[in-house]
Amino acid sequence: MKNHYSFVGGNKGSWRVTSCRTFAGAPLAPVQAIEVVNAPAADLVDRGTWVLQGFTSNIRYATTDELIKLRAVQEGLSRPAARSAALIPLKKTPAWWALSQDERRAIFEEQSHHTQIGLRFLPEIARQLHHCRDLGEPFDFVTWFEFAPEHTSAFNDLLEQLRATTEWQYVEREVDIRLARND
Amino acid sequence: MKNHYSFVGGNKGSWRVTSCRTFAGAPLAPVQAIEVVNAPAADLVDRGTWVLQGFTSNIRYATTDELIKLRAVQEGLSRPAARSAALIPLKKTPAWWALSQDERRAIFEEQSHHTQIGLRFLPEIARQLHHCRDLGEPFDFVTWFEFAPEHTSAFNDLLEQLRATTEWQYVEREVDIRLARND
Repeated sequence: MKNHYSFVGGNKGSWRVTSCRTFAGAPLAPVQAIEVVNAPAADLVDRGTWVLQGFTSNIRYATTDELIKLRAVQEGLSRPAARSAALIPLKKTPAWWALSQDERRAIFEEQSHHTQIGLRFLPEIARQLHHCRDLGEPFDFVTWFEFAPEHTSAFNDLLEQLRATTEWQYVEREVDIRLARND
Repeated sequence: MKNHYSFVGGNKGSWRVTSCRTFAGAPLAPVQAIEVVNAPAADLVDRGTWVLQGFTSNIRYATTDELIKLRAVQEGLSRPAARSAALIPLKKTPAWWALSQDERRAIFEEQSHHTQIGLRFLPEIARQLHHCRDLGEPFDFVTWFEFAPEHTSAFNDLLEQLRATTEWQYVEREVDIRLARND
């Protein structure tokens, strides 16, 4: 399953934890480091203190116009200058998941401007979404961001804008873990 | 993972195979029966000749209006009269998955009338969609249908209408297995 990723929190890993803040719901046990492994959790030998897992998948909300804009400016993970990262697992409410596709799309973009906000921070902030609700995980998504340390303040602005949206009223658990590359 | 289901093809099971026809792509090995188990494939003891698995999930295309219509008339699985079933695994092309959400929605409903066609056959034909592309499975979906034997001809009409749509031009593998309840 090449699209499955595990995020192993423990006392060693490529990313050192610099802060961990719980914004909603239950916290995660404190860890010193996180390792990102391209495998499902079931395949891991070292499971650390906790493991979050998810899969990358097809686009769920973006329109053609939005995808063209995103693809024109976004950059990938593992850029040498991107020595800062954030791991932000999120869980949305049952009310969110009971909505129809057009209702979720309207909240996501027409009301909350999720993609439009994200576009303002490209290419500086690279991101990858991992889905995990369908795997019975404690979160619905594991979001991963990478950026150069000098863009930390821009990243904080991005999160502040997203957390003020209507969409975020449907977020019932959110933990914000900041990381620095070890190597 | 209570939303995960496995479909075990082999020489025993609650559903007897009455026919198996490949509409696109590679066939499945012939089996005499299918057992449906509410568990992921990794948890199975008896794996038969083959196992298909998938998870039920949130609605991906239907609008509020469509959901209201569907929920008003659809019936669930396991109705006593529904002694016929069909297991139809499907795989769509990479081109389908590269489309944006609005492009897929337009093909699914505005061009192909997927929900509108399905509505005409409710409540006679009960259905459950299982997603599996994100699990690295050989198919993208495992669709399951249940109906009374006297509605077999209506079910064939439903499939004929769907297979004639633009959406089906994106189907690259499809196997149609018909079943009769054993007990």
